[in-house]
Amino acid sequence: MSKSFLPPQRILHGPGPSNIHPRVLEAMARPTVGHLDPLFVELMDEIKSLLKYVFKTENDVTFPISAPGSVGMEACIVNVVEPGDKVAVCINGVFGGRMKDIIERCGGIAVPVEFDWGTVVDTNKVEEVLSTDNEIKVLAFVHAETSTGAMSDAKTLAQIAQSHDCYTIVDTVTALGGIPLLVDEWGLDAVYSGSQKCLSCPPGLSPVTFNQKAIDKIQNRKTKVQSWFSDLNLVLSYWGSGSKRAYHHTAPINALYALHESLLIIQEEGIESSWDRHKKNGDYFCSKVKELGLEPFGKDEERLPQLVPIKVPEGIEEAKVRSILLNEFNTEIGAGLGALAGKVWRVGLMGYSSSRESIDKLIEALKYALNKSKE
Amino acid sequence: MSKSFLPPQRILHGPGPSNIHPRVLEAMARPTVGHLDPLFVELMDEIKSLLKYVFKTENDVTFPISAPGSVGMEACIVNVVEPGDKVAVCINGVFGGRMKDIIERCGGIAVPVEFDWGTVVDTNKVEEVLSTDNEIKVLAFVHAETSTGAMSDAKTLAQIAQSHDCYTIVDTVTALGGIPLLVDEWGLDAVYSGSQKCLSCPPGLSPVTFNQKAIDKIQNRKTKVQSWFSDLNLVLSYWGSGSKRAYHHTAPINALYALHESLLIIQEEGIESSWDRHKKNGDYFCSKVKELGLEPFGKDEERLPQLVPIKVPEGIEEAKVRSILLNEFNTEIGAGLGALAGKVWRVGLMGYSSSRESIDKLIEALKYALNKSKE
Repeated sequence: MSKSFLPPQRILHGPGPSNIHPRVLEAMARPTVGHLDPLFVELMDEIKSLLKYVFKTENDVTFPISAPGSVGMEACIVNVVEPGDKVAVCINGVFGGRMKDIIERCGGIAVPVEFDWGTVVDTNKVEEVLSTDNEIKVLAFVHAETSTGAMSDAKTLAQIAQSHDCYTIVDTVTALGGIPLLVDEWGLDAVYSGSQKCLSCPPGLSPVTFNQKAIDKIQNRKTKVQSWFSDLNLVLSYWGSGSKRAYHHTAPINALYALHESLLIIQEEGIESSWDRHKKNGDYFCSKVKELGLEPFGKDEERLPQLVPIKVPEGIEEAKVRSILLNEFNTEIGAGLGALAGKVWRVGLMGYSSSRESIDKLIEALKYALNKSKE
Repeated sequence: MSKSFLPPQRILHGPGPSNIHPRVLEAMARPTVGHLDPLFVELMDEIKSLLKYVFKTENDVTFPISAPGSVGMEACIVNVVEPGDKVAVCINGVFGGRMKDIIERCGGIAVPVEFDWGTVVDTNKVEEVLSTDNEIKVLAFVHAETSTGAMSDAKTLAQIAQSHDCYTIVDTVTALGGIPLLVDEWGLDAVYSGSQKCLSCPPGLSPVTFNQKAIDKIQNRKTKVQSWFSDLNLVLSYWGSGSKRAYHHTAPINALYALHESLLIIQEEGIESSWDRHKKNGDYFCSKVKELGLEPFGKDEERLPQLVPIKVPEGIEEAKVRSILLNEFNTEIGAGLGALAGKVWRVGLMGYSSSRESIDKLIEALKYALNKSKE
């Protein structure tokens, strides 16, 4: 017979999940209520309003999809992109590549705009592509590339898209809460994120926001959205703004308790203060890493403060270092992904994991692990 | 500023979620670990093996999809059904109708086989349809129709499908753990369920199981599965049986702690004992309901023991009764859905909510609410 699972208290400095605030875990264990319970419906309204706050938007269609960030990505794409729509998709890491795959699976014509892994999306190249091909209707890109730590210029990319009359689909999974993200001011059209990064909530939910321009496109589609679960025209019967909420699917009640609590914590800190904290701690971490003789991957000015890739030095076994950290310090850092596998570690400093104290401990542990791995 | 959400302790006798065992809520609040943490990977293996136990299957591809039951439904359909495949879909309530919608969205040709709401799927009619049209490749049906309380004969339906060389896609969302379900013995091909019914786990996960015949069809598809997230060929890099688990999406760690604990509880009770308990308590509830002068909807022998629809008596405001129960007894029962809206209440006696004690309290509360609603 199996036994109850009693996980150790890991210190999560990987690419997500990040550490969870004890208040959030406590909230998750509160008694489950029904998904149409009047008290739960009030909670849903609060969650929507808190998400608007962190996304810096007044979009009415702002809510958490009841599934991980990849479903948020899929939801944005399958709703906005109709079969035959030409979509320029910027690829500078794993997640741009995933967007391309989904665009093609729903009948869109993907126009890949590729960049070296670890570099940001070059806005000039995007301008050139959109200028050259005026059949392109949508620009898709990743704000904060979790696989490489590159921080692209979402504001400028959105301006370029607008000047070419294109919709934008923006991945903000690792961005939200960690770096400035101004959905309304920048005019982003369809945006998705994840709960387990800078919001410091357990994984499993994908906050999304759509502006009226995107909703108009979705409501005027000639074809049905290919996914029943993600079809916004249906989901909004449950998450929409009407006074009556009708059953669509059974929402993950306790996960939403956790998201609500984690959003409250961000609201208490202030979203701008959260950005500042991530920036300050990211800079501090990089300076400490350099003192250890390690080199962050990518250019300083293009690197996310909340997800720092570090080059694996010559002669070091990358997996051995991670394993020492995990086994001797209960500390998780991430491996490289895709083209960067084996070449970098990815260190997350997201949400509750972005603190000076945790960084100091991590640096000590890293120092020990690097030395020990050479033995 | 919003405040922490402190839900009351509801007694959940609706169509799901059911009450959650305190051990399961406690498990959910344990410290989050990474989704590739070696300890978590061991937990995944245990979850798979416990799910095989409750599904009564040896299928290697048995795991929880990281999203609600509707995504499980979508995953089964979009993987098994290829564009142009003819699918006979039995419709005797909301969920058969939802299957039809999804079949059509992924390019399948749905052949609806319709039955009155509240009745079971008539096996003779299905035999007739499959005999008449030998282009039909798949039979899709709901074992336990949550919208009407009807319990169809999954075993016979599977036999009919096999005799016509058809694959089966079976909705066991409300069935699993509550009524006998023998995936291997009956030869069901693609099966999905939900966490929040007779497993008594919070909503948000969809256990699925696929036999080798279904996997072979999926691996030999001519077209890509339309959903990236649900494409089994990709998901199995994470949930498959290989020793190496690779990143696909970030699993909802804490929700999986809860599922594991809820499956342990069922294993401790014994799956057959769980079926027996649901049956005994369902019969008891129906007898008590009749003593109150109420009438369960549908035929006795076709009714689920874990989800009992009750006819709303003439002259009673159905919403008023539910509201008295909720406000004065913290007790939730469900409204009718679809064609049965306003005509029945749906009373769930699922998982932890299926106990003699809880039923006795519910009957007392119902008696009070019926009287008070007439005032």
